[in-house]
Amino acid sequence: MFIKLDMASDKPIYIQLKEQIIEGIAREELHPGDDLPSVRALASDIGINLHTVNKVYQQLKQEDYIQIHRSRGVMIHPNGFRKADETYRTNLKEALRPLIAEAICHGINEKDFSELTLDVYQKILGKAGETNE
Amino acid sequence: MFIKLDMASDKPIYIQLKEQIIEGIAREELHPGDDLPSVRALASDIGINLHTVNKVYQQLKQEDYIQIHRSRGVMIHPNGFRKADETYRTNLKEALRPLIAEAICHGINEKDFSELTLDVYQKILGKAGETNE
Repeated sequence: MFIKLDMASDKPIYIQLKEQIIEGIAREELHPGDDLPSVRALASDIGINLHTVNKVYQQLKQEDYIQIHRSRGVMIHPNGFRKADETYRTNLKEALRPLIAEAICHGINEKDFSELTLDVYQKILGKAGETNE
Repeated sequence: MFIKLDMASDKPIYIQLKEQIIEGIAREELHPGDDLPSVRALASDIGINLHTVNKVYQQLKQEDYIQIHRSRGVMIHPNGFRKADETYRTNLKEALRPLIAEAICHGINEKDFSELTLDVYQKILGKAGETNE
């Protein structure tokens, strides 16, 4: 899995890094139990600050995507991921709400929106003839 | 249209205010050409800082939701809203991408996700027997 950061983007580096690790898990390029580089190694590899990597790892740990062991290092959570419960769904709907309100103002109806999300699913899961990176 | 701000929320006040105005437009509680209160009046009504309201109005103006006239005051953009073009759709997909990657990790497939978005459409458009606020 390659991490590609856009230093010129408005999106903070730590958010880009976090999103790419989560997308790597979604794509199954990273599997439960896989090792991740140490904070120091990853920071050095991609040329960013130690604290940035540490912040990302701490957040991923809090959200149960990874485990951080003092001795065994960092790994994708070996138990896999908590299935979406009602709280997760409610939070996801709250996150979608402003995007959908804007979309409605721009004439995108339910059906259009579903098609857009399908495109994104295919892009992430690499089903659209896209070469995986 | 009532503005309800949650001062205890992690979401910044200016984002809450901006999202509620856009949702008011999506719900058609606010129509093209409708007057909005002046910065001063709105800030005083809802008990927040002038600069916060000003920031929201400037962003809404930049995104073509409202017009700000020196003499006629603030109004919902009288020409309605730009229909979604390819750029808009691409940006929307980029905004959805991290939410969908997380959803995949939590076992939400395309169909589940579409159903969630449909719920949100119904909630915003008030079709689900929900009382409009």
